[in-house]
Amino acid sequence: MVASPWSVASSGRRRGPELERAILDAALEQLGTVGWNALTMEGVAAGAHTGKAALYRRWPSKADLVAEVLRTRLPPIGEIPDSGSIREELYELCARMRAAMDTRAGQALRAVLHECDHADADRFREVIWDGLHEPARRLIEELIERGIRRGDVRSDADSPLVSDVIPAMLMYRAKVCGSEWRDAEIAELIDQVMMPLLRP
Amino acid sequence: MVASPWSVASSGRRRGPELERAILDAALEQLGTVGWNALTMEGVAAGAHTGKAALYRRWPSKADLVAEVLRTRLPPIGEIPDSGSIREELYELCARMRAAMDTRAGQALRAVLHECDHADADRFREVIWDGLHEPARRLIEELIERGIRRGDVRSDADSPLVSDVIPAMLMYRAKVCGSEWRDAEIAELIDQVMMPLLRP
Repeated sequence: MVASPWSVASSGRRRGPELERAILDAALEQLGTVGWNALTMEGVAAGAHTGKAALYRRWPSKADLVAEVLRTRLPPIGEIPDSGSIREELYELCARMRAAMDTRAGQALRAVLHECDHADADRFREVIWDGLHEPARRLIEELIERGIRRGDVRSDADSPLVSDVIPAMLMYRAKVCGSEWRDAEIAELIDQVMMPLLRP
Repeated sequence: MVASPWSVASSGRRRGPELERAILDAALEQLGTVGWNALTMEGVAAGAHTGKAALYRRWPSKADLVAEVLRTRLPPIGEIPDSGSIREELYELCARMRAAMDTRAGQALRAVLHECDHADADRFREVIWDGLHEPARRLIEELIERGIRRGDVRSDADSPLVSDVIPAMLMYRAKVCGSEWRDAEIAELIDQVMMPLLRP
């Protein structure tokens, strides 16, 4: 028997990581085209040229599958190189957090949050949390420590509460006003809140 | 026929506001004793000595009834008198927000959020939002303006973003660490974040 890579029952089927990637790609594709409500495990399986069983073996529900898509496809914030200015670095950080939300995965995440019912929404908010807010907070701690060493941040600013201010503000305003932060608003957050808070 | 105040069908039944108060009292009582999951419209009706119809005429569901209980029973934050010190005033404000959450209604709200499923949780979070966060933010704006006039707040601190910091931080930390803020943590929020941010 000749194994076909497209046949679910075939002994030559794709291996774990490769098949998993194909399923996640297909799910992201479906999210972008039909959205959350119309996405089905059947449709994703068809898009990935596999069977439903291959999906259900990995993710017990559509919500689990989509949470995994968002978790693995949201881009990392990455490192922020030393620019000599905490102001520029914090602006860059906020811009990157926003950019992450503007990727295909970020847009899918927002669409999902908009479309899905409350029971699933909390799970997807956790994805934003773990994938975006927590890493941002850790990065801010590093930027503040570097600024203290460099001398453009006051020496007693390395407190967990200070590092929470940007993620807290981004989350709060997203909840109040929807999730868009314009360039000017990011600049205001840095200039009206963070610079007075951090200056030596 | 002699009208009994306890008889639902009686022509002498209690009028709107009085009956409504009795129902809300009974619902708060039930929340404190049996909790959210075990609370029933029947139980509340019995506690208020009325019939289920009187409840359903006003609130289509148990969640609507409970949201109304929390909305009407959470105490207002009130005014903060001029103490001569923005530091003391902001501490007082945070302490009052916390005290509101420590009332019978506040404890019921937390218990409900803990117990109820996600579909209802969002509605109850709105109650915290409208009843606590928004009024706090407006009050903070007033305190900052007063501090500017008095001279212990920098003159350009009256920005909406600055007024958002306390509610944003309270919400953020409640989400991350549970909702308890100890006295020392409130003091840290004021001394490590708000005072550096506001000082002239």
